[in-house]
Amino acid sequence: MSAKTIAVLTSGGDAPGMNAAIRAVVRSGITSGLRVMGVRRGYNGLLTGDVFEMNLRSVSDIIHRGGTMLYTARSPEFNTPEGVQKAADQCRRLGIDGVVVIGGDGSFRGARDLTGAGIPCIGIPGTIDNDIASSEYTIGFDTAMNTAVQMIDRLRDTTESHDRCSVVEVMGRRCGDLALQTGIAVGATTILVPEVPYDFQKDIIERMQFTQKTGKKHFIIIVAEGVGHVAELADSIEKQTRIETRATVLGHVQRGGSPTLRDRVVASEMGFHAVQLLSEGKSNRVVVMQKSEIIDLDITEALQMTRTFDVELYKIAHKISI
Amino acid sequence: MSAKTIAVLTSGGDAPGMNAAIRAVVRSGITSGLRVMGVRRGYNGLLTGDVFEMNLRSVSDIIHRGGTMLYTARSPEFNTPEGVQKAADQCRRLGIDGVVVIGGDGSFRGARDLTGAGIPCIGIPGTIDNDIASSEYTIGFDTAMNTAVQMIDRLRDTTESHDRCSVVEVMGRRCGDLALQTGIAVGATTILVPEVPYDFQKDIIERMQFTQKTGKKHFIIIVAEGVGHVAELADSIEKQTRIETRATVLGHVQRGGSPTLRDRVVASEMGFHAVQLLSEGKSNRVVVMQKSEIIDLDITEALQMTRTFDVELYKIAHKISI
Amino acid sequence: MSAKTIAVLTSGGDAPGMNAAIRAVVRSGITSGLRVMGVRRGYNGLLTGDVFEMNLRSVSDIIHRGGTMLYTARSPEFNTPEGVQKAADQCRRLGIDGVVVIGGDGSFRGARDLTGAGIPCIGIPGTIDNDIASSEYTIGFDTAMNTAVQMIDRLRDTTESHDRCSVVEVMGRRCGDLALQTGIAVGATTILVPEVPYDFQKDIIERMQFTQKTGKKHFIIIVAEGVGHVAELADSIEKQTRIETRATVLGHVQRGGSPTLRDRVVASEMGFHAVQLLSEGKSNRVVVMQKSEIIDLDITEALQMTRTFDVELYKIAHKISI
Amino acid sequence: MSAKTIAVLTSGGDAPGMNAAIRAVVRSGITSGLRVMGVRRGYNGLLTGDVFEMNLRSVSDIIHRGGTMLYTARSPEFNTPEGVQKAADQCRRLGIDGVVVIGGDGSFRGARDLTGAGIPCIGIPGTIDNDIASSEYTIGFDTAMNTAVQMIDRLRDTTESHDRCSVVEVMGRRCGDLALQTGIAVGATTILVPEVPYDFQKDIIERMQFTQKTGKKHFIIIVAEGVGHVAELADSIEKQTRIETRATVLGHVQRGGSPTLRDRVVASEMGFHAVQLLSEGKSNRVVVMQKSEIIDLDITEALQMTRTFDVELYKIAHKISI
Repeated sequence: MSAKTIAVLTSGGDAPGMNAAIRAVVRSGITSGLRVMGVRRGYNGLLTGDVFEMNLRSVSDIIHRGGTMLYTARSPEFNTPEGVQKAADQCRRLGIDGVVVIGGDGSFRGARDLTGAGIPCIGIPGTIDNDIASSEYTIGFDTAMNTAVQMIDRLRDTTESHDRCSVVEVMGRRCGDLALQTGIAVGATTILVPEVPYDFQKDIIERMQFTQKTGKKHFIIIVAEGVGHVAELADSIEKQTRIETRATVLGHVQRGGSPTLRDRVVASEMGFHAVQLLSEGKSNRVVVMQKSEIIDLDITEALQMTRTFDVELYKIAHKISI
Repeated sequence: MSAKTIAVLTSGGDAPGMNAAIRAVVRSGITSGLRVMGVRRGYNGLLTGDVFEMNLRSVSDIIHRGGTMLYTARSPEFNTPEGVQKAADQCRRLGIDGVVVIGGDGSFRGARDLTGAGIPCIGIPGTIDNDIASSEYTIGFDTAMNTAVQMIDRLRDTTESHDRCSVVEVMGRRCGDLALQTGIAVGATTILVPEVPYDFQKDIIERMQFTQKTGKKHFIIIVAEGVGHVAELADSIEKQTRIETRATVLGHVQRGGSPTLRDRVVASEMGFHAVQLLSEGKSNRVVVMQKSEIIDLDITEALQMTRTFDVELYKIAHKISI
Repeated sequence: MSAKTIAVLTSGGDAPGMNAAIRAVVRSGITSGLRVMGVRRGYNGLLTGDVFEMNLRSVSDIIHRGGTMLYTARSPEFNTPEGVQKAADQCRRLGIDGVVVIGGDGSFRGARDLTGAGIPCIGIPGTIDNDIASSEYTIGFDTAMNTAVQMIDRLRDTTESHDRCSVVEVMGRRCGDLALQTGIAVGATTILVPEVPYDFQKDIIERMQFTQKTGKKHFIIIVAEGVGHVAELADSIEKQTRIETRATVLGHVQRGGSPTLRDRVVASEMGFHAVQLLSEGKSNRVVVMQKSEIIDLDITEALQMTRTFDVELYKIAHKISI
Repeated sequence: MSAKTIAVLTSGGDAPGMNAAIRAVVRSGITSGLRVMGVRRGYNGLLTGDVFEMNLRSVSDIIHRGGTMLYTARSPEFNTPEGVQKAADQCRRLGIDGVVVIGGDGSFRGARDLTGAGIPCIGIPGTIDNDIASSEYTIGFDTAMNTAVQMIDRLRDTTESHDRCSVVEVMGRRCGDLALQTGIAVGATTILVPEVPYDFQKDIIERMQFTQKTGKKHFIIIVAEGVGHVAELADSIEKQTRIETRATVLGHVQRGGSPTLRDRVVASEMGFHAVQLLSEGKSNRVVVMQKSEIIDLDITEALQMTRTFDVELYKIAHKISI
């Protein structure tokens, strides 16, 4: 068989490090003798044929850039059997023999379906939420956490100068990992995550009052997006403690920015690994990190795994932030 | 007369660079032969006698820290004639012959009143809002703007990756300077400030549509806090343009963080200048920047000045962000 | 006359903010009805005809990028009368009616010569050194200083943890502005600049020993590139004081990075102003900042001005860093 | 037995995250019913009795600070059998029943010896070099790498604007991990580490020339401190390739700065784990990370392990940076 052609796309929410993954796919692909096509705006680009050939220089000077040079978008059309079929037909028409999909679980379901329609796909976990059960790490997570920490470090200055309490909402709809790690890193008095129910009186007010007795005058409470209601929380805290309390929603700022070293390196390894899988004729695999190593799993199996929240770390967090 | 004693306090909202100003006051004071007292939590500390003597090392390793090492707070009691009298009495009791007040216009009114009660005061403009008519620059402004810009640069990544519009609220209740400068620096399609009325259709929608025709797919709209309503704005924009639009409120994060060089240097110069004034027996003066130079004005006169918004720069902003 | 065509180039050392200036030139030019050409690699691009037409979108998403999208280089050929003539001929051949040159004094001499050869030129001061006598501010200066300060803040941590002295060389061959401002901002015990001779014993050793007596255990000495010899200085300091002393040369890192707000805003204003001058038929002007305002001067006169070092600020620096 | 007393010290080179580890030791200790003493300047503080009791608030607002609040220093006296004996006697005199030592292999040898002299010790790996064989991660490594990456990202701007080559020395005397990870993250054309011999012609010149043919015009070469000679390398590269080449030594800047999230979190976990070991009566253990988990090993055995360099990752690095 002559030179194979592979394509790469980013899908779902963007995450810092996606460009490093794209770069690794393109470079590993080309240096392995493959042709590599870039697909714009996720599965939409497959449907509309918004695809272009990439060379070694197409991915120059992007490793340090946030966002994704291939753009990303949701694709309602692709989420139908007809859409999947149309995308597979387009791939055949364009001579695409395999696709690397960088995104989250939703994107992986697409990759599984497209594989089912005859186009071998490989998934790479790229989402700032770290909410993929099969992988202990997802590209973008480290950058998003560090961005949140840097913003909260700034909040700390003004919180401390005014003897206030700051209630801060960080990203994480169903997954409390970002809140937990961020909460430890900023020394939050309390961390609220979707995975662990909380008792307002015991977990917030009493902890604040205990540390107040030891001389603490300013407080940070971290709340995952999935718990939410930071404005109401702030009101309740101010009423009960009489400590001036302000709510802040960090929001989409956490999604952007130049990726940290970790996101660049993990993305590079995962991109390299994905191309190797396609080169070896593998398909319907997702590249994951487990126990610090980059391995791969069957996508279908990976999608059935369930996340476990690190309750042990959650307890440590509250033990040392006192 | 034997060695004079001066005090320094920070009042009103905290601002990055206040520590550099405190440091300059303490060091200039001591090297000029004065005794320098630190007052905690603004005018409250004067009322309660929360005052301590500072030495050269009290202000070591604070020049790069955000917030204020002397803390700050509002003081309703001081805002009464009795409060001012009590504070003046405390100063006399503590042997304080002069006070340097770092803060905004509200703090300067306090300084004027305290001077009136017999304690010579000097004001230093410290507020991230740049809303002091008498000075073209206030300590903390540069840091707050750069923080806002860095956050919006992050937003830009995700805004661009998704072909979205971001509507971003930055600080500035009555003063649009921070919004204007930040808006220029991030290349905002439109900047809304309290000083200039806007036409939703003409200033936002039409500008977006014009640039869209030239190929632009993502947009940033900067809105000063005093204009507000970013969620509603985002909704209206999305409805009219069908471009996915998100609102973000940067909030108190803009108040904190290690001060920029400019804030450290200007604060150092102003702190030095304030002590010189007290040493020369001057009183009821505010240290300001005018045409790049550090000079001083009568506080009472300074408080009567009115701000002028830089309409020329506002026009340039919209001319080049297209 | 039909639509005029102008060109823009960056010359000499690159500086953060140059992209913002290019963007302002391109956008102001096009919205004023001009055609705008980009010239690559300074005057070389004029000589070789490495020139391309720019549109509103050519400068999208560059305002926050360090370096220069037009590249820069020295041009020995242009530095001859024949070179200037050839460049002028190229301009005429390409239909270029005016050139905006972003760079330092060397670049301005080129602009003056090219004007002399019949091509109206306007200069914009872009150099991290702030070494242009006619302007109190040059594009890139603020970013370079803040980069230096952030690096030295990091050095401070390790210097403090080990009770050491750090001798740090910052940029500035003939001009001590960057060293002076940076030295104030990091609280340097001593600042050495090319403009002020120093006495090793009195200005370094005695100052260190004085502050040591007040309890200070770690020290930062800032040295401008033009003074140099930081390794030898560090050795001498360690020998005399027995304080462990390390030398660091910050180097070219100071040249890069995303520009600060100030550099973006000043560059935008200057770029706008430069196009206005060309539109009004002016020529051989340099856009400068004086007393916080953007004005313009005759290039030839500007090149004859001599810099004055801010000795007053230098004295303040040493008075408060004790 | 009544309440046990433990001590904590930092030794060897400082590393960002040491404060987070100290904080975790102090807080976990106190909330577990222990008394916790801080020891200043490593083993010196034990010898001289420079020891103070810490409470919950002693470690407030330090988690985000670089350096070590307990200072650090080498201790030639402690490196003798008599020194160890004297330190053990001091511990007994001060009622110290266990010591947590945060540092590198040298510090762990001290901990082993002090345990031998009757004072149970626990080691925590804190060094930016990641050069501890028994642990896949050391506190400070992530911050140092990210600092290096941010500095090199800045260098990239100027390197690209001038079509240059930058040869950059990063930390790592015997261990190439920091150079390898940093090199991947910045997309270095070649990475030189002490663990892998290199061929100047084949590994540098030919790689540069190959990518030059694909259109690349600027280059970054990363060199570990243990390989060194960056100035000579730069000269040789410029001579052979005629590409302007500059050498930069990042130096001690890499040691400082606010720790990244990862360093804060890992340090918190390790500090917590160390106190648990002492509480359980364990001794002569070092807390390490293996396969992403925090476990503990016998110090003596840990010191005999040998590091393995990740040759696989090294190959990937060069495969995708082309």
